[in-house]
Amino acid sequence: MIQAKGMAAMKAKEPLKPYTFERRDAKPHDVVIDIKYCGICHSDIHMARDEWGVSSAFPMVPGHEIAGVVSSVGSAVMKYKVGDLVGVGCLVDSCRECAHCKEQEEQYCIPGNTGTYGAKDRNGSGYTQGGYSNVIVVNEDFVLRIPKSISLDKAAPLLCAGITLYSPLAHWKAGPGKKVGIMGLGGLGHMGVKIAAAMGAEVTVLSHSESKREDAKKLGANNFLLTKNKEVFQENALSFDLIINTVSASELDLGSYFNLLKKDGVMVSVGAPEKPLSIHPFSLIMMRRSYAGSLIGSIKETQEMLDFCAQHNIAPEIEVIAPEQVNVAYERVLKSDVRYRFVIDMAKI
Amino acid sequence: MIQAKGMAAMKAKEPLKPYTFERRDAKPHDVVIDIKYCGICHSDIHMARDEWGVSSAFPMVPGHEIAGVVSSVGSAVMKYKVGDLVGVGCLVDSCRECAHCKEQEEQYCIPGNTGTYGAKDRNGSGYTQGGYSNVIVVNEDFVLRIPKSISLDKAAPLLCAGITLYSPLAHWKAGPGKKVGIMGLGGLGHMGVKIAAAMGAEVTVLSHSESKREDAKKLGANNFLLTKNKEVFQENALSFDLIINTVSASELDLGSYFNLLKKDGVMVSVGAPEKPLSIHPFSLIMMRRSYAGSLIGSIKETQEMLDFCAQHNIAPEIEVIAPEQVNVAYERVLKSDVRYRFVIDMAKI
Repeated sequence: MIQAKGMAAMKAKEPLKPYTFERRDAKPHDVVIDIKYCGICHSDIHMARDEWGVSSAFPMVPGHEIAGVVSSVGSAVMKYKVGDLVGVGCLVDSCRECAHCKEQEEQYCIPGNTGTYGAKDRNGSGYTQGGYSNVIVVNEDFVLRIPKSISLDKAAPLLCAGITLYSPLAHWKAGPGKKVGIMGLGGLGHMGVKIAAAMGAEVTVLSHSESKREDAKKLGANNFLLTKNKEVFQENALSFDLIINTVSASELDLGSYFNLLKKDGVMVSVGAPEKPLSIHPFSLIMMRRSYAGSLIGSIKETQEMLDFCAQHNIAPEIEVIAPEQVNVAYERVLKSDVRYRFVIDMAKI
Repeated sequence: MIQAKGMAAMKAKEPLKPYTFERRDAKPHDVVIDIKYCGICHSDIHMARDEWGVSSAFPMVPGHEIAGVVSSVGSAVMKYKVGDLVGVGCLVDSCRECAHCKEQEEQYCIPGNTGTYGAKDRNGSGYTQGGYSNVIVVNEDFVLRIPKSISLDKAAPLLCAGITLYSPLAHWKAGPGKKVGIMGLGGLGHMGVKIAAAMGAEVTVLSHSESKREDAKKLGANNFLLTKNKEVFQENALSFDLIINTVSASELDLGSYFNLLKKDGVMVSVGAPEKPLSIHPFSLIMMRRSYAGSLIGSIKETQEMLDFCAQHNIAPEIEVIAPEQVNVAYERVLKSDVRYRFVIDMAKI
């Protein structure tokens, strides 16, 4: 077994603490990764506090935005060698046999993909443990190659925030001639702005916070709509081909936002609120609009996204913290007090 | 002016009564139609009772499933001649200048299409009056040709119920190899079954009423799911490419129905409930599903639908009534006590 050190929630809702645990020894197709950085995703907080009611896996080491260096490989590993710069995102395994796995969309694995932490491990009887730690062992099929031009600290958030935005933007064909709205300018939204702009779309940030106006422009947005001003909804009706909704608040009046879409326009939610939304289908019916959802992205698409970001010089805006600052960082995430992603320096564990 | 006789709601929520009113004389591009039959659509009831809070046009002659014979034409009419069998659906005009009108999707006219009744008439200062009457005057661009093989009584419901289902089925490509669900087996749903089956899709009716099982098969459905049995949702998860939702009840748990869709599957609502729906986007996110809306269909598509129905020998199941039975018919529609569409014999007015 491999000794690992990390930060764990020993029980739901408890602050994270230093924690020592074991990783499996590398199987023939496993890659052992010396973790250098791990991003903090809002869903880490939901999971560590069991707010979705889906997890019983405590102690829990969160973290699924992992960047590091290969320290050893199993005997049959073909894709990676010691010293390679690699990443791990939200998945570390899937059934590999269902229709969705066979079409390389393992994020939608029918029996269920294996999440990077808090999920039943297909390699043993326990639960997976995530990237707030110094080492991880992952099957090579779920390891991504990080292009050399992206520094590891900035690469980390691409593995969740990056792919979560890239996938719907690519799937719904953001590009030249398309008007794309990004709802919410946080960890997810700011990657959406950068990626959609690099794809060639005309990008508008929709935010309730005037303080984000300047940042939106700096990040590459063409326009900014302050959604506290109700008249923006009237003035910009029928404007957007695609809106990516990164805001998971339940109290949002989605109908007003639907009206911003063109005929046949699509809003895609990438974050699930805790409570259901109230939706009147009237504004969907009137212009044949759609409301859709999208879950991270496939491994193949994640590699495509990393290469795209390298090619277009895209990286997240980050604030690097030490492992012992994680609980303070959680509180700041909840107050949207981060521009735009915390990344833990795991070498300091 | 042309003298017309019809059945009207003199005020919101009042029973319909015989009513005499005037139609405009034919302008150069107008067709005067001797109405033979008019279907009763659920939205007639909503409108006559002002349940959507959108209408102030009383007295109101409802009816937008109109079939009749051309009795005279304006001097410039090219498309129709006296004696032609024709129909009028939900629209009698649109702005003709906006982007949507120019791409021949005038149902989505941006300044607003002109509804067949209860709408501001673009030809005058008043409100349009619908098909529960013996004569109507309509611009030739909004008149449909009824194929000779469809009897006029059966043609009437195609003009709303038929096109409302045909349009989303065609838009989302129902056809061979596709599994299509039809939620609700009423006036709309029964047309959905017939049309989807004729398009070559595998059709399943989803109904909470066991009494519809046999009818579903007779109408051409391959399968029937009794949605009162909660286990059907588990057993049929990930089954459908497309579900057309004709049920406008607000209390429906749409999440369970979303789970019936395959990855990338779409549910399309064609009827708006009075109250908003509660939707948790989780089941959309998990399999990149979409929830969309669709409004009737364009004039071009309506003609295509009529020709399709003639070619495939499709017609609605109807119960023909006399004009004075309309109030009783309304009560029976509200109790779903009609298989499947009332059609008023307007010759008896």
